[in-house]
Order: sequence, then structure tokens, then C-alpha cells
Amino acid sequence: MPSEIERKFLVTGDGWRRAALGPGLRLRQGYLPNGGAPGAPVVRLRLAGEQGFLTIKGPGLLTRAEFEYPIPPGDAEAMLAGLCTSPILEKTRTRVGHGGLVWEVDEFAGPLAGLVLAEVELASADQAFERPAWVGREVTGDPRYQNNNLVRAGAPPGA
Amino acid sequence: MPSEIERKFLVTGDGWRRAALGPGLRLRQGYLPNGGAPGAPVVRLRLAGEQGFLTIKGPGLLTRAEFEYPIPPGDAEAMLAGLCTSPILEKTRTRVGHGGLVWEVDEFAGPLAGLVLAEVELASADQAFERPAWVGREVTGDPRYQNNNLVRAGAPPGA
Repeated sequence: MPSEIERKFLVTGDGWRRAALGPGLRLRQGYLPNGGAPGAPVVRLRLAGEQGFLTIKGPGLLTRAEFEYPIPPGDAEAMLAGLCTSPILEKTRTRVGHGGLVWEVDEFAGPLAGLVLAEVELASADQAFERPAWVGREVTGDPRYQNNNLVRAGAPPGA
Repeated sequence: MPSEIERKFLVTGDGWRRAALGPGLRLRQGYLPNGGAPGAPVVRLRLAGEQGFLTIKGPGLLTRAEFEYPIPPGDAEAMLAGLCTSPILEKTRTRVGHGGLVWEVDEFAGPLAGLVLAEVELASADQAFERPAWVGREVTGDPRYQNNNLVRAGAPPGA
């Protein structure tokens, strides 16, 4: 199975804006109800600008199986409106260069406004990487910061 | 939203074989866990011969929103093996002509061997159609005959 290794951090300042690799991309995404059982696969519908995506993520927080397919934006709109659990999560994603890696900084909007998270994708779980000054506490292992849980429960205290 | 109107029947004999439009297609399919809540969307992974499909079905038994996408067969295999609730449903689907419409006859295998169901797709819920001699009781409104429930609970008594 294809898999991804991501590490996720709280963002503590605006320093990342100076290293932005381009304008931010507006994302709207939602999740199909999955019963919330631990380990249940997550099905995400996303509109990224004008493109729709359907993504299935297997269990696990750090290394997880992921399958992603482009779909017509109208299909994504219809499933976000008709099938996904509400509310729909909205954020702006900006790619930021640091130490030879590309970070993704997500500024949340709507009910989660004020929350800013940064993720970096690594080739292996033990890959060394340079930690930017603008990241704070690591939240990779914290399920409260998974997007599907943020949608349901809101931002954790102290985020 | 695109939608489909299907009516489903038990099959009571072999008469349909004489009207088969071609050889049967072997299907293997499974479902992502969705918590089983009434009305929860169903996500189906299917291998149809050598082609993979991912299908999302909204709530409702007769008219339901449906979104289907072709995916690489290796992805379908991986999700059937790693993410779907077991057991995987196996059946052979044969297209059968009757009264100007195409019926799909499904002969189940594995734990559901012996169960044969026929479906016809209609343009509207009240469209008249000729009922073949080889169909018996209609089970359109019976959730026990939905594939995802057949996988979980087995064939209902008297099927």
C-alpha cells in the first residue's frame, strides 16, 4: 500500500510567511460518517481551489495507507453538501520552504479560526529534519489535531 | 446529484440463462466500515474482472445518490484486503435482456452461495416494465438484501 509519513506541529508566529513558495490555496473539506470507531478508515472529500479530490486514509497517525483520486468538483460539492458530516472544514494551505523540505502551513477559518498547523512529509519515520523557528509543540501523535476530529470537536484548548 | 432507480427481485429458476447477453463478469467487492448507522453513506470497493471501482452511495433504498470512479485494480485489491469489513462478497453478474430492458442477474459465491438476485435499472420510480417469469418476490425495499448487509448478516431465511 502507498503510505505517507507526516509530522505535524502547532505554529507559533508569522515567520513562515517570509518563506512562502506561492499564494495560499483555499481548501474546503469534509468527511463521510464512519461511526467514529478507532481505526476506522477515513473518507475525505476536498475542494482545493477548483479541483475535487476523494481520499481514503487507513488507520494510524504517523504512517498510514492513503489513496487519493481526483474527482469532478461538482461531485465534491454535492458530497460535501449532502453526505458529509457538518461542519465543513475550511482552511488556506501555503507551501513554505525550510531546510530543503517543503512544509504545508494550514490557517483554519470558520469555527476553527485562529488555529494554525504545519506539516512536513518525510521519506521515513526516522528522517532527520531542521525544525523551523516558527513551529511550536509537535502534535503528530495527538488525535485531537486530526482534521476529522477538529471538525467534530473543535480546536483543543491551548492550540 | 446523479441518482439511480433500481428494483431488485429474488430469482426463482434458471430461465434467465437463455436470455444472457454475454458471459458473466466476476465481481469481488467489499465495504468500508461506516458505523452501520441508518442513512450513513456506503463506500464500496469493487474488482470487476480486471478493473477497480470506488463507489459512494448515499442513503435511500430505491432512489439514491451514487458516485462511481474507476481506480487502479491494485488499489482496489489493497483496500479490499486491508480496509474493508470482511468477508469480501463474491458474485458473478450476467446481463440478461427482457422486454426491452437489461437485467443484471447476480449469482453469489462463498458464504452466500445459492442466493441469486436480479436487478433492473429504471428511468423513473413509476416506469412500467415487463416482469420476467424467472423473478420471484420483489426485495427492493428490504434492507436485508442490500449487499453491505448481506456481507454482514448473510442471506435472509427463505431467500
